[in-house]
Amino acid sequence: MSLNLHMSANPGVSPDRRVSLSHGRPLVAIPGPSVIPDRVLNAMHRAMPNIYEGALVELSTGILNEICTIPRTSGHGFIAISNGHGAWDMALSNTLSRGDKVLVLESGRFAIGWGEAATVSGVEVEVLHAPPRRAVDPAAVEERLRADKAHTIKAILVVQIDTASSVFNDIAAIRRAIDAAGHPALYMVDCIASLGCVPYEMDQWGVDVTVGGSQKGLMVPPGLGFNWANDKALAAHQSAGLRSAYWDWTKRLSDGSHYWRYAGTPPISHLYGLREALDMIAEEGLENIWARHRVFGEAIRAAVEAWAAPGGLELNVTDPAARANSVTTILTGSIDPNRLRRVCEEEAGLTLGLGIGEEYEGGAFRIGHMGHLNPPMVLGTLATIEAALTAMDAPIGGSGAAAAAARIGQAMGA
Amino acid sequence: MSLNLHMSANPGVSPDRRVSLSHGRPLVAIPGPSVIPDRVLNAMHRAMPNIYEGALVELSTGILNEICTIPRTSGHGFIAISNGHGAWDMALSNTLSRGDKVLVLESGRFAIGWGEAATVSGVEVEVLHAPPRRAVDPAAVEERLRADKAHTIKAILVVQIDTASSVFNDIAAIRRAIDAAGHPALYMVDCIASLGCVPYEMDQWGVDVTVGGSQKGLMVPPGLGFNWANDKALAAHQSAGLRSAYWDWTKRLSDGSHYWRYAGTPPISHLYGLREALDMIAEEGLENIWARHRVFGEAIRAAVEAWAAPGGLELNVTDPAARANSVTTILTGSIDPNRLRRVCEEEAGLTLGLGIGEEYEGGAFRIGHMGHLNPPMVLGTLATIEAALTAMDAPIGGSGAAAAAARIGQAMGA
Amino acid sequence: MSLNLHMSANPGVSPDRRVSLSHGRPLVAIPGPSVIPDRVLNAMHRAMPNIYEGALVELSTGILNEICTIPRTSGHGFIAISNGHGAWDMALSNTLSRGDKVLVLESGRFAIGWGEAATVSGVEVEVLHAPPRRAVDPAAVEERLRADKAHTIKAILVVQIDTASSVFNDIAAIRRAIDAAGHPALYMVDCIASLGCVPYEMDQWGVDVTVGGSQKGLMVPPGLGFNWANDKALAAHQSAGLRSAYWDWTKRLSDGSHYWRYAGTPPISHLYGLREALDMIAEEGLENIWARHRVFGEAIRAAVEAWAAPGGLELNVTDPAARANSVTTILTGSIDPNRLRRVCEEEAGLTLGLGIGEEYEGGAFRIGHMGHLNPPMVLGTLATIEAALTAMDAPIGGSGAAAAAARIGQAMGA
Amino acid sequence: MSLNLHMSANPGVSPDRRVSLSHGRPLVAIPGPSVIPDRVLNAMHRAMPNIYEGALVELSTGILNEICTIPRTSGHGFIAISNGHGAWDMALSNTLSRGDKVLVLESGRFAIGWGEAATVSGVEVEVLHAPPRRAVDPAAVEERLRADKAHTIKAILVVQIDTASSVFNDIAAIRRAIDAAGHPALYMVDCIASLGCVPYEMDQWGVDVTVGGSQKGLMVPPGLGFNWANDKALAAHQSAGLRSAYWDWTKRLSDGSHYWRYAGTPPISHLYGLREALDMIAEEGLENIWARHRVFGEAIRAAVEAWAAPGGLELNVTDPAARANSVTTILTGSIDPNRLRRVCEEEAGLTLGLGIGEEYEGGAFRIGHMGHLNPPMVLGTLATIEAALTAMDAPIGGSGAAAAAARIGQAMGA
Repeated sequence: MSLNLHMSANPGVSPDRRVSLSHGRPLVAIPGPSVIPDRVLNAMHRAMPNIYEGALVELSTGILNEICTIPRTSGHGFIAISNGHGAWDMALSNTLSRGDKVLVLESGRFAIGWGEAATVSGVEVEVLHAPPRRAVDPAAVEERLRADKAHTIKAILVVQIDTASSVFNDIAAIRRAIDAAGHPALYMVDCIASLGCVPYEMDQWGVDVTVGGSQKGLMVPPGLGFNWANDKALAAHQSAGLRSAYWDWTKRLSDGSHYWRYAGTPPISHLYGLREALDMIAEEGLENIWARHRVFGEAIRAAVEAWAAPGGLELNVTDPAARANSVTTILTGSIDPNRLRRVCEEEAGLTLGLGIGEEYEGGAFRIGHMGHLNPPMVLGTLATIEAALTAMDAPIGGSGAAAAAARIGQAMGA
Repeated sequence: MSLNLHMSANPGVSPDRRVSLSHGRPLVAIPGPSVIPDRVLNAMHRAMPNIYEGALVELSTGILNEICTIPRTSGHGFIAISNGHGAWDMALSNTLSRGDKVLVLESGRFAIGWGEAATVSGVEVEVLHAPPRRAVDPAAVEERLRADKAHTIKAILVVQIDTASSVFNDIAAIRRAIDAAGHPALYMVDCIASLGCVPYEMDQWGVDVTVGGSQKGLMVPPGLGFNWANDKALAAHQSAGLRSAYWDWTKRLSDGSHYWRYAGTPPISHLYGLREALDMIAEEGLENIWARHRVFGEAIRAAVEAWAAPGGLELNVTDPAARANSVTTILTGSIDPNRLRRVCEEEAGLTLGLGIGEEYEGGAFRIGHMGHLNPPMVLGTLATIEAALTAMDAPIGGSGAAAAAARIGQAMGA
Repeated sequence: MSLNLHMSANPGVSPDRRVSLSHGRPLVAIPGPSVIPDRVLNAMHRAMPNIYEGALVELSTGILNEICTIPRTSGHGFIAISNGHGAWDMALSNTLSRGDKVLVLESGRFAIGWGEAATVSGVEVEVLHAPPRRAVDPAAVEERLRADKAHTIKAILVVQIDTASSVFNDIAAIRRAIDAAGHPALYMVDCIASLGCVPYEMDQWGVDVTVGGSQKGLMVPPGLGFNWANDKALAAHQSAGLRSAYWDWTKRLSDGSHYWRYAGTPPISHLYGLREALDMIAEEGLENIWARHRVFGEAIRAAVEAWAAPGGLELNVTDPAARANSVTTILTGSIDPNRLRRVCEEEAGLTLGLGIGEEYEGGAFRIGHMGHLNPPMVLGTLATIEAALTAMDAPIGGSGAAAAAARIGQAMGA
Repeated sequence: MSLNLHMSANPGVSPDRRVSLSHGRPLVAIPGPSVIPDRVLNAMHRAMPNIYEGALVELSTGILNEICTIPRTSGHGFIAISNGHGAWDMALSNTLSRGDKVLVLESGRFAIGWGEAATVSGVEVEVLHAPPRRAVDPAAVEERLRADKAHTIKAILVVQIDTASSVFNDIAAIRRAIDAAGHPALYMVDCIASLGCVPYEMDQWGVDVTVGGSQKGLMVPPGLGFNWANDKALAAHQSAGLRSAYWDWTKRLSDGSHYWRYAGTPPISHLYGLREALDMIAEEGLENIWARHRVFGEAIRAAVEAWAAPGGLELNVTDPAARANSVTTILTGSIDPNRLRRVCEEEAGLTLGLGIGEEYEGGAFRIGHMGHLNPPMVLGTLATIEAALTAMDAPIGGSGAAAAAARIGQAMGA
């Protein structure tokens, strides 16, 4: 396509190259925290209430009942004032004892990090390594578990979507592998970067503990960590030696007192925000949310594939089935990703995600595409990256913006 | 370019065509009100203050001093609680008397509307008609004024940018025409859709009265109307028979009392907002603001020209020099503009401007590109329109998103 | 009562007299703008919407239907972007012509001010004077109207509550006087400082035009002016020579176009706020609102009467039946009211209203008690005034705080 | 004093006893969360930023440097996403090992609760009991520590102000007792209900670990827990066996990475709020804050003492020197405290604190007077309680509102 650009001479205006274009509404497209809806920010903008009785207690009770609908479980949900790392500790301390062994299924940085957290508390950690840029291989899981005849492994730790590599793991397939090996270990899944973005069926897939956070698909600022536990997990909890007062599931379950639901003063502002976010999720419906994220994931991948050129951008995850619909890690070839990120932010008001971990620093960037997201945001992100690549004279094949608009157009009702 | 779209089958997700993609941050790209910056909305979110003395009075005095920097005048600035139509009445009632005659220079709907307002107050209005889709012709102005040998015309009314047609008039050239005719009429310019977007030099260009509103380039919600008047206008004001208490410039000039600056209770929330907006304008600098709007105007026109196809979209304004950098009216050929607007809004969260006036209803839509605007917003708007056109199987030539990204990339520092 | 004050010596703390106590939530108790509820401020904190169709238009239509419930009329309601003075001009310009005569019923500053506004537009104004500190005397009105045998008086202007003097006029009794005189003039009542505070029955009391503003009993920041007109007023409107485009009732009534309801761009933020305020009014019920204001008015008067001492505070309005329940003007005897106001604001975070008008400057202050108000606010205001009087060694008889708490306690359910 | 109440008959208004007076700005006077300043709420109302670099990282670094000024220490400050109970766990897990012994100094509920938390983690807890309604006795501390010749006690846990009993402990005196006993245990002080309210000198008084929370004197919604540690505490930390990844001081100290300062995603909204709160604290000055709280504490106690009557209200803490300046627990004699709380909330919009703990439920209520507080708030609280007591026909001696206004008047500059 030929671009017929109209270049007017306009008196009184500085020459092009000295213009800064970033003076509009900033767009932050990092893989968490995601864009918080105005409705949620407004809901959080409230005076402190009576915390002993009345409206706040009712709102809190409603939320605690309702949050189990997100991971689709009939188990128990817990909300801690924490971030995702706190929710990791909460899950570990409520189910394990010093000296227990866990198997970590690698698919990027984050399951590894969860394992490192376990180590600090005196848990023995074994990592089942995976090749770079690839998902967990259920067959390898089955093989390892079959070898653990003594069942020394007490828990298996995995992430559904790795925020660093953007690998998407097949949680149901891993459960089938565990079952095939006949292994009794607790199955614990970190859904921090995937809940409220992609399908997740905790009960149907046989997950024992699910870990979540507020600041990604749930559209609430960082500050809430979630655990969901089924009866098997609660049974293991009874003998967990790592329990501590703040995280303790038992106290938080207690029927008598609202005070103990959050182990002390509740996260008032965040509860108001979460209430609004849950309403928005219910209004849209989880199925539409998942489908919407899929379309956007496909549009972003279509853009990267359109841009592809020697020395240019490339999707990190090689297997199409293992590409996440909430975050995309993009390898940058000969292009300096930090210059690209700086140009997008300083010249255009678009913040992209840093490549994190040794294998990505200096060679990748990430687009977060989770939560409160529509075509103007996704396409605005992609077209701005394209403009920045143009400004940098970076190698690009075709127009990713055009490819993504076409993909979204296909999915759009008319 | 060939689009290599990745269409994954994803279990648990409804088929594409039933997905709604609009659940993100809405983007409203209408020609006013424009997108209000979070900083401005936050500044307006304040309790009511002492209105007799102290901080509010100081803030108000500072604003009244500073607003003259926007139209570049050493004259007097007035802020009324009103919208743009109120500001029209304020300008008319402070300078004219019943039975006076004004010459309206047509270039779309809005100067005509201003003239109609004058008629209600008993002013005689003559319209200098212009061909559709074209700017005011300074030569025609000169010719008409030369014919008014008795100087019965008391004022000349024109808009810098017509929000309906997106025509951009050359205000300096019209002043040269008035001077060439040696005509003494007041020169009154409506800059509601152009102030804070494109160059405007009230004093240098010899404008006597400038009219503005808060809700476009000034980035504040509707609720403030502005007049700026030079000494010639204030002299005419002395004998204006249409003066009324609320609009009266004289009372509003009074040095003694803050109360009369706004003819009663001041527009407190809007003053807080305007203070923040003026800070943002000062931080960026008017020259950068003008240059930024020019780049975005060019990008939007590049997109429309790339889309051009038989039966497809077309720029309304035929003369490239008369195309506005704050609003673009697009003719839609065989495409139903209201369906396009509906698809963008309901399926993608993007609101476009209605075609207004008999000549545009049903055959045009408008993009507002004024104020708080960066590449993700402009490109997000254009690429979403492209997706909607695709969804509607509308005729398009090439990718407007790609063309606009290329134009913006050219202007972006790297 | 003897005060047994516990004066502890506390190491590390500066001596008493150098403490500033004002570092909490400021309380502004001026007679408008009143305290805006958080719900209203939050509702106003919203992005700009589609202004052509959809939710905003529905919200606006609902409001225009609903506002007639406030003055209890089946007539027509109009909302202008303006303050109260704008609403005055709107009422005058829609009903009168240059050279018409109006009768202004004095009871303080504000009806006088309304008359002065009429003068600017060329209306002849006659003032029926009243003794200072007293309400309009219906018998005097009847007498004056009987004398106008030629019915040269076209309209009668009065306020229900005068914000300066805090006089409360008996609107129904004045109508009875007009009727007794058999006079056909339009009866126009300014309820800016009384609507949403005290009983008002526009239809039942035979008022033809009611004028209101957003920033007092209606609990919305300044920025909206209201007119309500009955059929008699609309008939007079047909021949009103002062009509101008911005205020014109006829255009604003037009069924075809939402655009003309507000004569151009609507007051979006304020409409969101007004919607919330109307919801709050409906939730509480007008009758409870009136009763609540009565209790608070009585509590404030009880406090002033308790404080009474030679050289001390005194209620401005002498006739108990003419004392307003939304604002109280207090004469300060030998006490410097501006020092009292300064001490309250700078040392305690309480802003009181200035005495306005020649007769009050330097000799009075005002308490606004309108709108969003509960016992902690009213009693906090009074007890802080008491503390300031103590700090100033001003003459006080007894504890106004105690008297007001007792009055409120009597009215409080338990 | 005789109350001369003016009881007007007002047509159209329901009789007194059916009026609800609560429709104003709610006032929540509970001992935490305290009233959050509008400035803080506004600062929190912001979109999510770049979390890798730039403004947020600079803001965070500035805060981490600055928070040590609050407890007056040159040690290290840590901010966890948690509430106060989380901050307890953080302090315990970073300094102790399973099987260690701690001595808890009782003065109400909260030190006991901290000890209970330690027990969950396997720490041995001994409580030094104190008589009800009294502060910790330093002599008893010295005696107990002298008896611990083997130095088996590793840490001493105490609160500065107990939120349940409103006892104020003399932290410096307890340090002198520890020193007199020559005991090496860590001295750990919970200042959750006292920081930013009353004098506290961590370094000067020889405290090793200070624990805080955001939601009381620091004027930020619940969601942040604080630890401050001196070098002695950090030395003990090296061998603490209870360390876990989320709380670990060592990781949070790490210089390399901002990410680990908060053990993962930072508490963005709360950091914005805390930044504003720290600015407000710096603007007022800690000394003025302490003095202001002292005046308000004295005013509240003056009110309770004025109300005193047989069967009526009474201060819980018997020793005047042990009465807190941030919270006051009031015994209610024959009065039902829950009815009093309900009347205040439902009829007047004032929320009071519940009596907590077995000894107080049903026999006490609490007033929180911490943080963002001025005379209208304190006096509004007290006068409303007085009105409620009147409404309930409860026994009261004299006017507490009058006594408190007098006390505040004495302290107010004029």
